[in-house]
Amino acid sequence: MARSRHPTAPATLNRSARRRTKLTAKTSMKLATYKDGSRDGQLVVVSRDLTTAHYATGIGNRLQQALDDWNFIAPQLQDVYEMLNSGKARHPFPFDPAQCMAPLPRAYQWVEGAAYPSQAESARAANPEAGPENRPTEPRMRQGGSDDFLGPCDDILVADEAFDIDFGAGLAVVTGDVPQAATPEQGLDAVRLLMLVNAVRLRALIGDQAGPRGDPLQGQPCAAFSPVAVTPDELGQAWQEGRVHLTLQTAWNGRKVGLCDAGAEMHFHFGQLIAHVARTRRLRAGAIVGSGVVGNAGSERDGRREWPKGYGCIADKRAMETLQDGAPQTAYMRFGDTLRIEMKGRDGEPVFGAIEQSVRRFGE
Amino acid sequence: MARSRHPTAPATLNRSARRRTKLTAKTSMKLATYKDGSRDGQLVVVSRDLTTAHYATGIGNRLQQALDDWNFIAPQLQDVYEMLNSGKARHPFPFDPAQCMAPLPRAYQWVEGAAYPSQAESARAANPEAGPENRPTEPRMRQGGSDDFLGPCDDILVADEAFDIDFGAGLAVVTGDVPQAATPEQGLDAVRLLMLVNAVRLRALIGDQAGPRGDPLQGQPCAAFSPVAVTPDELGQAWQEGRVHLTLQTAWNGRKVGLCDAGAEMHFHFGQLIAHVARTRRLRAGAIVGSGVVGNAGSERDGRREWPKGYGCIADKRAMETLQDGAPQTAYMRFGDTLRIEMKGRDGEPVFGAIEQSVRRFGE
Repeated sequence: MARSRHPTAPATLNRSARRRTKLTAKTSMKLATYKDGSRDGQLVVVSRDLTTAHYATGIGNRLQQALDDWNFIAPQLQDVYEMLNSGKARHPFPFDPAQCMAPLPRAYQWVEGAAYPSQAESARAANPEAGPENRPTEPRMRQGGSDDFLGPCDDILVADEAFDIDFGAGLAVVTGDVPQAATPEQGLDAVRLLMLVNAVRLRALIGDQAGPRGDPLQGQPCAAFSPVAVTPDELGQAWQEGRVHLTLQTAWNGRKVGLCDAGAEMHFHFGQLIAHVARTRRLRAGAIVGSGVVGNAGSERDGRREWPKGYGCIADKRAMETLQDGAPQTAYMRFGDTLRIEMKGRDGEPVFGAIEQSVRRFGE
Repeated sequence: MARSRHPTAPATLNRSARRRTKLTAKTSMKLATYKDGSRDGQLVVVSRDLTTAHYATGIGNRLQQALDDWNFIAPQLQDVYEMLNSGKARHPFPFDPAQCMAPLPRAYQWVEGAAYPSQAESARAANPEAGPENRPTEPRMRQGGSDDFLGPCDDILVADEAFDIDFGAGLAVVTGDVPQAATPEQGLDAVRLLMLVNAVRLRALIGDQAGPRGDPLQGQPCAAFSPVAVTPDELGQAWQEGRVHLTLQTAWNGRKVGLCDAGAEMHFHFGQLIAHVARTRRLRAGAIVGSGVVGNAGSERDGRREWPKGYGCIADKRAMETLQDGAPQTAYMRFGDTLRIEMKGRDGEPVFGAIEQSVRRFGE
């Protein structure tokens, strides 16, 4: 029998015992990709408190490599992570999010769901005839371009403010291999890493108002990801049934506009989103599946509908305003605007580091 | 001054002269990817007549690597190609399309246009009020999943014939880096390779008839590509203004159903398709841009509209039948059906090798 490549699995275990060992072994770590001038950057392991990092030299240069051969490489990365956290790593250096590319600077698959029904809820609230049974039984999902993701501190380059520049604060998972026709449970088992995402939208190029010059594809430019991708175990009890039970914080020009609960109102959990995509095809290691914009349902207060937790994209805010006052008030982003998206753990410490971007005119 | 990495550019040339040399140097070759058990396969150079091949060992193992560093690697691959054609290659072996993965077994971007207005023309022909000015000024394009392409002889695995399994015979280009807001001319300059594609569609999961369980994303499972990808120069005079002026042949269960001209009726050429995608974002090396299903407009004969060149997808055939007789006649593919897509050069020889697939029930 070939010796297991899993370094923690004793060679004497039989196959099913090895498999159990592998499945139950906790994998808890934070990974990032440092800019080095190459297309894929350099894989680094980041300490739990996000203060120090360590190159994964000798283990793997690129995150995709680790995902391609996860059961072999992840335990080695975890060893580095543990040494880093205990102060025993050989060559630690201060971690700087500004040096980060997206954890996967380019990926083979990027597909986004609409797992939070907040916008649909808003629309339904405006229509008293629609009942809760209208809630969809399957998520609607959309493929995005994955050849050129932005790092957490990279500028959002847009040619024209008239494109109606919107942010989109959400979560995303990176999967391992997922078989065709996978169940939601198999989908969940395949979750390797979680990240925050800013799924930028150019609203004027999407939907009915776009006209003949618009195209949803053009309205979805490069998405940006958090400095760090974390394993589900890193979230502890906050990761439950395929949902992250933490608050996603969004600040626009320094003002907090969203403190949305990413957990309870996620109508389709990540396993369901993955299974939906895999219904007619396999998903291969390194596929990124996004939640869509995180949002929470509103509540009635003094006869007026309110959304006390704010919003994760401007389009949601405008839908709320339309429901409240018949017309949107909030304009889309302008050149020079800044955005900050982050999420803190139950210990109050940031989990993923922050996405901190500015909007800049393309070509200047 | 750093020495140019382009082996044919003399070190004494200044930068702009080197650039001219690079741009005018002809790159003519055929490349394929052999199955070797890995996710990306092994890059091979294939002889012009598709009879022999040679590993690109020592130059690059994977096609993506070559695309990432094209100006450095392509001339080396071309040397192998020329030795192969002249019978002077060191370790040639018989080329077997059945051993091929897709030239890019996984890619960072796969986006398809609808460059041939045949279906739109059919619809317009049925509506005498619509004039030719309705022809769109911008292509509609759709992102596809790119993490798991099929090789030219791989089976199409579908769970249920009721999904309405359709083929989709088209062309696709692989690009180099394309800047944001590129012009169609810049788009054309970035075309590195051409391939044939079978963009499989599950029609019952797309569009109005799909119902709440359908999703366009689920209706687009893995696409398959020709055994060989060729440089534009390899097409000679057949490659003109971003179009391939050759006939795309489609045979379904051994019967020729399409002999469609891929050139004259391509409403948006590949440079325009690329520029459309790049309007709001960069495209990175290795992006695949598809033409959509190749089709030709019909003509009036004895008061009846006919399409003598046939069709590249069953949905087109059914649209033709609907126009002729008010209802579609042709059913979608069944398990066991076979499909063959190929294209011959002006010398009558196959350019890309053939896509030859069977439809098989998933899980059997």
